[in-house]
Amino acid sequence: MSVLDRTLKKIYPQSTSARAEATAHIEQLTMPHWALGDLLDLAVDLAGMTDNPHPQISRKMIACMAADHGVVAEGVSKFPQEVTVQMAWNILRGGAGLNVLAEQSATDIKLFDFGIAADMRAAEESGLINKKVGSGTENIAVGPAMSRTMAQKAVENGIAVTLEFSEYDIYATGELGIGNTTSSTAIAALLTGKSVREVCGRGTGLDDDQLAGKIRVVEKALKVNTPDAKDGLDILSRIGGFEIGGLAGLILGAAAQRKPVVIDGFISTAAAMIAATLEPFTKDYMIFSHRSVEPGHAAMQEYLGCKKALLDLNLRLGEGTGAAVAMNLVEGALAILNSMATFAEAAVSGADK
Amino acid sequence: MSVLDRTLKKIYPQSTSARAEATAHIEQLTMPHWALGDLLDLAVDLAGMTDNPHPQISRKMIACMAADHGVVAEGVSKFPQEVTVQMAWNILRGGAGLNVLAEQSATDIKLFDFGIAADMRAAEESGLINKKVGSGTENIAVGPAMSRTMAQKAVENGIAVTLEFSEYDIYATGELGIGNTTSSTAIAALLTGKSVREVCGRGTGLDDDQLAGKIRVVEKALKVNTPDAKDGLDILSRIGGFEIGGLAGLILGAAAQRKPVVIDGFISTAAAMIAATLEPFTKDYMIFSHRSVEPGHAAMQEYLGCKKALLDLNLRLGEGTGAAVAMNLVEGALAILNSMATFAEAAVSGADK
Repeated sequence: MSVLDRTLKKIYPQSTSARAEATAHIEQLTMPHWALGDLLDLAVDLAGMTDNPHPQISRKMIACMAADHGVVAEGVSKFPQEVTVQMAWNILRGGAGLNVLAEQSATDIKLFDFGIAADMRAAEESGLINKKVGSGTENIAVGPAMSRTMAQKAVENGIAVTLEFSEYDIYATGELGIGNTTSSTAIAALLTGKSVREVCGRGTGLDDDQLAGKIRVVEKALKVNTPDAKDGLDILSRIGGFEIGGLAGLILGAAAQRKPVVIDGFISTAAAMIAATLEPFTKDYMIFSHRSVEPGHAAMQEYLGCKKALLDLNLRLGEGTGAAVAMNLVEGALAILNSMATFAEAAVSGADK
Repeated sequence: MSVLDRTLKKIYPQSTSARAEATAHIEQLTMPHWALGDLLDLAVDLAGMTDNPHPQISRKMIACMAADHGVVAEGVSKFPQEVTVQMAWNILRGGAGLNVLAEQSATDIKLFDFGIAADMRAAEESGLINKKVGSGTENIAVGPAMSRTMAQKAVENGIAVTLEFSEYDIYATGELGIGNTTSSTAIAALLTGKSVREVCGRGTGLDDDQLAGKIRVVEKALKVNTPDAKDGLDILSRIGGFEIGGLAGLILGAAAQRKPVVIDGFISTAAAMIAATLEPFTKDYMIFSHRSVEPGHAAMQEYLGCKKALLDLNLRLGEGTGAAVAMNLVEGALAILNSMATFAEAAVSGADK
């Protein structure tokens, strides 16, 4: 049996008993009923995911996965492809948005090369981790992004990340790759059933003409490739990206270990949709960090069962920045569950009935 | 000249030059234009408030102000008045929601007695700080909450907090006081021009009948007291609370020192409205942490110029809990402003024009 199949077999829903126990505990804490709102819902989810009414989550890691996209040949991005390499170095050197926001929430960053279209051996000495599946995908406007074998390898390399870094209690997704909103838009349109126009955004800052061009490219990618919406590996191989496959694997690996995984923005959510296509119970382990500016993001989150994300801050950077910020809310939810006093402990009078 | 008048004279708008300098710097940082959205707007605000394009904000304090309210005689709360004392002890002992969330964001808590209706000398040995103006307000359903002299003293005691704790770079508001949503609802209705029904919420969890009763009490308080909406001290003396006056003073004191002040929920926002009535430029120093479940909160924030708060997590606990969570976003915004690399520093190619 493949690593992927073994992983899928390990994924079960959240624990209803741990959820119930956490809920009963929260109802005894010194506050009016459910007065910390969404943080309490998150606390119950964390209990359910970890099968522990008092989960211990201290080691936090953002897996930032980088890869290139052949579709940049169609002019879908404001930035040249070399920016993938440059931003990888920027992250390794600590200068990116991801670095400063992950530091604020005391979250480790690991940067993985899932398919940057360049020789990155020098960067490996500076901490880049080699999970390369290929050297950039093919141009999805003219044919499939990658073979089915490569798609499976991308996912399995992502699963491997959770095994190699199993000392972490929680993972988060991040990504880097010029052109990857184009792939993600194609995945979003395919799986939400919305038109490309409805889910296509400006990525790194396209103007109206460039946006119209991107819409045509995504429509063409869907028409040329005809991905099977029921088959996650088929979607990934035809219109995906190596880092999107890697993130789908990370999510599956986290769920198989009963660990929460914080989902970042638009591209990460496309990866989450691939993961959920491979195993729908995976949705039970996703924490949706924020709702981004990308117009398709809300529909994608709703597809995954998320009505409202934790944050709504008009973010559209990716890298894992929104997940980094949301890690603070995860910590807050845990602190409530594990450290607040009950009415009895604090000798505080309850509400009249 | 009174402490209050001297403070009001020191309050000026944000620095436009520091805002412009921060904006220009952010536009050079390694990300697509304004891709960290609201965090960047916050960063520019922090620069404008502190008159420093690279503000140093490390010492963070939540001033949690506690007081009692005579209006509890009307049955406006689910919890008995003794809970104010009990929750003060809970905060001093570290068991409240505020404690665990402030610890998560590495924010110090100081708890002040602005008018708890009990002898709190034993608690002072455990850290409670005496700023008592009276022993609970009068019942606003039958007459004014306090004299105008007491209202001024409450505000000046709040200003004193910013002078006595001037080593902090940023303040946040928090409060504790059974019955204080009733006062805050009266202030909200008076200043937003909305009906009491529109802005009145369930506080600690009233049922429909209890909510109808609370609406009648607030309507009566406004009718009996006829506060002058242009006169902050008149509003405070007639329908306010000691802790609401103290928080208004804290906000004025912060603004006079060009320091940001993070505003928590419904009661804190009522205090912010009093502060803005005394000096409208004070609004320039407010950071709105979250939009609470209380139905009047959005209208109150809009009155203060806030279209969208940082967080929207269905919180309704008060104490300063929402402000504690939002401190993480303030730190994130600062980290972006002060630590991210520019395109030139990181040798990252910019967008094509």
